[in-house]
Amino acid sequence: MDSLEEKTVKRETIFDGKIIKLVVDDVELPNGKLSKREIVKHPGAVAVIAITAENKMLMVEQYRKPLEKTIVEIPAGKIEPNEDPMLTASRELEEETGFKTNELTHLVSFYTSPGFADELLHIYVAKDLKKQANPLQADEDEFVNILEVNIDEALQLIEEKVICDAKTVYAVQYWKLLNALR
Amino acid sequence: MDSLEEKTVKRETIFDGKIIKLVVDDVELPNGKLSKREIVKHPGAVAVIAITAENKMLMVEQYRKPLEKTIVEIPAGKIEPNEDPMLTASRELEEETGFKTNELTHLVSFYTSPGFADELLHIYVAKDLKKQANPLQADEDEFVNILEVNIDEALQLIEEKVICDAKTVYAVQYWKLLNALR
Repeated sequence: MDSLEEKTVKRETIFDGKIIKLVVDDVELPNGKLSKREIVKHPGAVAVIAITAENKMLMVEQYRKPLEKTIVEIPAGKIEPNEDPMLTASRELEEETGFKTNELTHLVSFYTSPGFADELLHIYVAKDLKKQANPLQADEDEFVNILEVNIDEALQLIEEKVICDAKTVYAVQYWKLLNALR
Repeated sequence: MDSLEEKTVKRETIFDGKIIKLVVDDVELPNGKLSKREIVKHPGAVAVIAITAENKMLMVEQYRKPLEKTIVEIPAGKIEPNEDPMLTASRELEEETGFKTNELTHLVSFYTSPGFADELLHIYVAKDLKKQANPLQADEDEFVNILEVNIDEALQLIEEKVICDAKTVYAVQYWKLLNALR
């Protein structure tokens, strides 16, 4: 597989922000020619598939500035420096939904946009969910509404493009697969 | 849902590249406080789930500079200005795999990373695949190897983290669901 490798000739840092960093690499292609690659560096994130005892998936309604609209997603958040992704998952679930879990299993991890970003998203499945009387508080610049949706409602929200992001579309398909295998 | 909206106070363009653009927005939060949002603008992309008559999925092995490694993905590519996404899908399938299709169906579209990017990825399912003697040529800075994998191989590649991006993990789960419903 090494024959496809692109060697870094030079890296220029364009922006180093609060969440992302942007670099531009000059690379040498497998045929010896030069090209440029625009790359977003991201700390990585987690997301949680949490289905309650009533067979409803916990979701959050959140305004996403890049899309200029409010969408519905499974609970998620970025990994803090040196934080174990499983702890991030447990923390974000409680902060965003008020539910705590004693049983968190890693399902899969995937790069969201390998063409231009290194963001790796870890997806966990949470079971044994308990509503907390005094849950952890969300970040001060984060505003969300909590939803509990059954599978038909989730499929309807996809139809309506209110559920419209990779991790949540993946989560609902996972739920369909679970039901199909049952 | 409007109560969650973040109003743009100011937008600063940091970088305007060949593929992505980076802007930083000063926003007014629902509680009246100010915050910043780092946003990557992307033209959007397509990906194609193509299962051959031999029940194998067409995939490409490609070096991804942001990840500094070679991974296996379903055929995909970014949308050119004013291009119909379905034409992009048909073109990318032929350029990357040498197969042409006469039957392309839109499956779903999702934002890959709604927290920091506006990239919208359209996924199509291709049927009636025909190997071309003289297929369209790929972009000059694009080097890929073509693979045809059965479902067990695909699941094994996920296990080995060689398949490790959102669209391809989604595509393999879609394939599992198809088989489960059969």
